[in-house]
Amino acid sequence: MFGARCLLRALRFCFSAPCPRHKPSAKLSVRDALRAQNASGERVKVQGWIRSVRSQKEVLFLHVNDGTSLESLQVVADSSFDSRELAFGSSVKVQGQLVKSPSKRQNVELKAEKIEVVGDCDAKDFPLKYKERHPMEYLRQYPHLRCRTNVLGSILRVRSEATAAIHSFFKPSSKIKVPEENFFNIPAFLTVSGQLHLEVMSGAFTQVFTFGPTFRAENSQSRRHLAEFYMVEAEISFLENLQDLMQVMEGLFKTTTTTVLSNCPEDVELCHKFIAPGQKDRLEHMLKNNFLIISYTEAVEILKQASQNFTFCPEWGADLHTEHEKYLVKHCGNMPVFVINYPLKLKPFYMRDNEDSPQHTVAAVDLLVPGVGELFGGSLREERYHFLEQQLARSGLTEAYQWYLDLRRFGSVPHGGFGMGFERYLQCILGIDNIKDVIPFPRFTHSCLL
Amino acid sequence: MFGARCLLRALRFCFSAPCPRHKPSAKLSVRDALRAQNASGERVKVQGWIRSVRSQKEVLFLHVNDGTSLESLQVVADSSFDSRELAFGSSVKVQGQLVKSPSKRQNVELKAEKIEVVGDCDAKDFPLKYKERHPMEYLRQYPHLRCRTNVLGSILRVRSEATAAIHSFFKPSSKIKVPEENFFNIPAFLTVSGQLHLEVMSGAFTQVFTFGPTFRAENSQSRRHLAEFYMVEAEISFLENLQDLMQVMEGLFKTTTTTVLSNCPEDVELCHKFIAPGQKDRLEHMLKNNFLIISYTEAVEILKQASQNFTFCPEWGADLHTEHEKYLVKHCGNMPVFVINYPLKLKPFYMRDNEDSPQHTVAAVDLLVPGVGELFGGSLREERYHFLEQQLARSGLTEAYQWYLDLRRFGSVPHGGFGMGFERYLQCILGIDNIKDVIPFPRFTHSCLL
Repeated sequence: MFGARCLLRALRFCFSAPCPRHKPSAKLSVRDALRAQNASGERVKVQGWIRSVRSQKEVLFLHVNDGTSLESLQVVADSSFDSRELAFGSSVKVQGQLVKSPSKRQNVELKAEKIEVVGDCDAKDFPLKYKERHPMEYLRQYPHLRCRTNVLGSILRVRSEATAAIHSFFKPSSKIKVPEENFFNIPAFLTVSGQLHLEVMSGAFTQVFTFGPTFRAENSQSRRHLAEFYMVEAEISFLENLQDLMQVMEGLFKTTTTTVLSNCPEDVELCHKFIAPGQKDRLEHMLKNNFLIISYTEAVEILKQASQNFTFCPEWGADLHTEHEKYLVKHCGNMPVFVINYPLKLKPFYMRDNEDSPQHTVAAVDLLVPGVGELFGGSLREERYHFLEQQLARSGLTEAYQWYLDLRRFGSVPHGGFGMGFERYLQCILGIDNIKDVIPFPRFTHSCLL
Repeated sequence: MFGARCLLRALRFCFSAPCPRHKPSAKLSVRDALRAQNASGERVKVQGWIRSVRSQKEVLFLHVNDGTSLESLQVVADSSFDSRELAFGSSVKVQGQLVKSPSKRQNVELKAEKIEVVGDCDAKDFPLKYKERHPMEYLRQYPHLRCRTNVLGSILRVRSEATAAIHSFFKPSSKIKVPEENFFNIPAFLTVSGQLHLEVMSGAFTQVFTFGPTFRAENSQSRRHLAEFYMVEAEISFLENLQDLMQVMEGLFKTTTTTVLSNCPEDVELCHKFIAPGQKDRLEHMLKNNFLIISYTEAVEILKQASQNFTFCPEWGADLHTEHEKYLVKHCGNMPVFVINYPLKLKPFYMRDNEDSPQHTVAAVDLLVPGVGELFGGSLREERYHFLEQQLARSGLTEAYQWYLDLRRFGSVPHGGFGMGFERYLQCILGIDNIKDVIPFPRFTHSCLL
């Protein structure tokens, strides 16, 4: 479609209206163009993809988007420009004057002097159709093109903002004065993934975190599982109780969300308006109130007293299932709820023994949230050599984990940490039903399209 | 070693000197304690690991480090504290008064009122020995303990700072005014790794980057290769020449380095002083001057005219080897040098054809730096459908890459990008000879200790 013929066409597409000599135009992003305070005819250059074309008698209206904002920039061209060449999906470079818009719909618009079609787009073959709102399931078939839609654009901008906010939460700029009680006012480290490795680092740095791809061979087609997902993990030394750990978890959730809401309000609004009506209020409710705390034992009691019939009968010593998590969150007034102190037998060897026989629980904590279920998992870690040694011996792991035992021999400290599934976090704040829609390239059982 | 006996010992180790009633002590990191401007007897609590113990007649000096800075905090205790229990490597909590130090060696010191040994450390078994400077090779045997040394601590703090600086380079805070010409004053996206996927995103967002672990099954025992390394990759839409791409590459290197130098000068100095003498001057030389640019053809000419005998004879059309890279960097006055326009046959299918027959090169660029060799690799990407189709057909890849071809059918744009090996970057600025020492847990051929 391109090649020699295309080069000719590209030249043909390069329209110019006469304009006086002037200094070279400044290149502006759509976002910056839209934010221009005094649009009074500065000459600028904007690049992007055409999102809509509207042709009137003497004027042509284009909307150009470059991914920097949900809103597109309105380009106004006179009838010397040929609307047939300016198609939905094509990439263009536009030069012109940034002026105040007479319409109330936007503050500024770009009076085109020159429009160059850089790459055309055949509407017939293009899977995204003009003015159509495609279902998410449809878009999932086109992982290489779906980021050109409003909704995926918004979700991915929120993803980017949340990523940056998480980094800031753990590593505030040294120029910013942080409150004395902030847990992370010291260097934090990006390491390779994995809690046990973070524990190594926490034996020298007191507060560490990692944020990266994590892989699980989960044979699940659920709307909450991926084979590859992103996880934030943190580990804190000299931490002695779950209360302090839960404070960091709640802080991470609330601080990150507040930052996202303040930095990309339009993108969040799009999701709350068109995809998850009511989510705005639900999220505000979560942010305004304290997260709840119940013990695993209390949780089982609540489930036993429920009028609802569960597929899996709730019983002390058994795992909580999705249906149970849902019920508990609802029971707690649709607030996030920490469930703490799980039976030792349900949890991995590294969790700290509560020594509360006959129950025998460990200092584990899961955070359940509305719509998603388990969002965080964490625990105090067993820092006592003999306790850990016994647990390892029981699982026949002593030899493989000698290095991990070593950490308890040489200046051991009480410590704890947690992991948060990043895609589930995005689902939770935006109200996105399927986890495959909050990651650019979802990989899951029997599916790795890209 | 711990268990019941240990709990008793921990209690026994908890010394207290009489002190008046006061409000609860503020918990301080060592870094913040050292920076206290007016240390005039505030009661504080500091936690960390003992780096040294010195016992005098009536006084005991401890140095406590918690990973927040290279410098440790001096703790002064009177003779009622038992020095035998306060061993090198043990973890402690110290409560006391922060006061001006009479010595010139430090501004402040902590007058201990209470010292609690949290986890002891048996000097006999501890692989790190007091007052010994262990060779890097020795430390590599203990990936779970080496971060407790000064040098690894410094390297990992620099790694953390460089990571943050790279994120900032691509995504400046929305509160900071960025110059108009900054390439990345718009949202940037963390995606799964891989240039081709970044190209998908760059079809909607104009500037994207990713920073994460990358895996290569390179069967190399060299000091420059790892099976798992971290890579920064960026892709820029509407970019039409290598000059603009090289500007971003040079900007990333210089901005990140300047930030690191300004935010952790002591850590950088430690490396420059003890590990790589002369590196400080070499780095300043790189930062002050413009990076050089030569074509591949010029590079081959330079090599052919060299008086040096190479193992691999330099020849137009053949790859540049490590020995060639070294010579070129030296020839360029030990300045980083961009080598551009490589033979098409040496490079992958996606690089942009320069159409300069009979040579037939592509718009590729590598950045070679002193001590490390290739640090960046990048190119303009082939955005013309027919050129790309021909390249794919030649390699029999057309079917597998239909989605990639699609990007050239629907609003294609000229674009380019690059990748930078993060560990090699750290080697380059710190002068660390072996790549295994700039990553917390090195994995390479036949070795995955942790």
